[in-house]
Amino acid sequence: MNFMRRPLIFVTNDDSYRSRGIKLLVEIMLKFGDVILVAPTTQQSGKSHSITVHDPLRYHKIVEQDNYSAYVCSGTPVDCVKIGFNILMKDRKPDLLVSGINHGSNASINTIYSGTMAAVFEGCAENIPSIGFSLDCHSAEADFNHCIEAIEKITKNVLENGLDEGVCLNVNFPEKELKGIKVCHQAKAYWNEDFVERKDPMGHSYYWLTGVYYCKDDDKSADYNVLSDGYAAITPMQVDFTAYKVIDRYKTRFEK
Amino acid sequence: MNFMRRPLIFVTNDDSYRSRGIKLLVEIMLKFGDVILVAPTTQQSGKSHSITVHDPLRYHKIVEQDNYSAYVCSGTPVDCVKIGFNILMKDRKPDLLVSGINHGSNASINTIYSGTMAAVFEGCAENIPSIGFSLDCHSAEADFNHCIEAIEKITKNVLENGLDEGVCLNVNFPEKELKGIKVCHQAKAYWNEDFVERKDPMGHSYYWLTGVYYCKDDDKSADYNVLSDGYAAITPMQVDFTAYKVIDRYKTRFEK
Repeated sequence: MNFMRRPLIFVTNDDSYRSRGIKLLVEIMLKFGDVILVAPTTQQSGKSHSITVHDPLRYHKIVEQDNYSAYVCSGTPVDCVKIGFNILMKDRKPDLLVSGINHGSNASINTIYSGTMAAVFEGCAENIPSIGFSLDCHSAEADFNHCIEAIEKITKNVLENGLDEGVCLNVNFPEKELKGIKVCHQAKAYWNEDFVERKDPMGHSYYWLTGVYYCKDDDKSADYNVLSDGYAAITPMQVDFTAYKVIDRYKTRFEK
Repeated sequence: MNFMRRPLIFVTNDDSYRSRGIKLLVEIMLKFGDVILVAPTTQQSGKSHSITVHDPLRYHKIVEQDNYSAYVCSGTPVDCVKIGFNILMKDRKPDLLVSGINHGSNASINTIYSGTMAAVFEGCAENIPSIGFSLDCHSAEADFNHCIEAIEKITKNVLENGLDEGVCLNVNFPEKELKGIKVCHQAKAYWNEDFVERKDPMGHSYYWLTGVYYCKDDDKSADYNVLSDGYAAITPMQVDFTAYKVIDRYKTRFEK
């Protein structure tokens, strides 16, 4: 891409506008272009591609500077993206959407639950080059300094060369120190859930969802394993979920 | 599969346990096996793969019969599946998970927003053969009679032959009359959103998300077009979102 003017970069996340990760992401993106942030007012982890259709939405401007404006939205990450595209950036589409930096890995099966990655898929479906950045550490005080150089490198590359239509990037960083960058595939993994039972003051049961993560993928180029080895894992992802490899066989099975 | 005993079939949806679609789906599934229904208490359309992590969940049994029991759950469709797998079916995993029949199409990009299909992806990630059934009509009074024969045929086929690991089915029916069944791919499409502004009694703005659907896929074997032509559209889908076609090129771009 050749930019006649500074690129316009859309920043969002699912941890809310107050998280350390999004504040740092804004700082980095301001080196590359003008930034509009639209982020959830409250924590939206695990909201996936949820949209708010049975309740109204609200948004408010919280920062207005020459090259940076920020809004908070009452909804989910995908609501934030839709308000960004359809109200706040109606007259000029962004050149790039970045989501994160998430406090917690979105490698392997986590991508399907992730609000961070849902925002990225939404940008991708709207044909905007979109990248999700996540750190393999859930702490609110997480240190992201070792990721900055790689984020800048990836961002520069995507601003200059774009991404294939229908393809976005899911980038995950190890908690500490970075050995390098590897392009990989989504690991086969699952959560083994447990529900912790509690009793309310009336004696009725309620349950908290908890779980333990299992990776069942031995492949060294699976994102979870790349991350465990200390590399930044870039998994290119697509919004077309069709299982093309079975289509011909399933025609024979189901069309007769 | 050879069943020494009647198959156990897990039924869920996103329209809530009171919808016509799920009631019919239970009736159909009882012809094939024993049924456990776990469905949301309230409408959960557009909730995608959202899980409830910051609030507790509750569930209650509402039906107990010899070969059919039903539960309602305060959470999302994926919460229902997790409660089903980890509490109610802890000792015997289901042989099949079916979700729907949804009041409204989940073809093309709709699959990413859909609670119906999220339940199916969750079943698939847990290695249970999983099928989503949806009707291209949003009416609460929708007529599903023309779909019954095809649902029975597809269900029988999947119970007998299973599905490939990591693959599930997204089945969409036209509103009326069925010309046949076609296996297809997810159509390239998007929603052009609009936000309708209203004022609250204090004079502050709030917004309702609305939108118009656009299909930009001319391919006759795209699910949206197959459905528009009057056929049931079976789109095999996968929980691995990796864009394999770009991996080698992106290695060159990002690993250097």
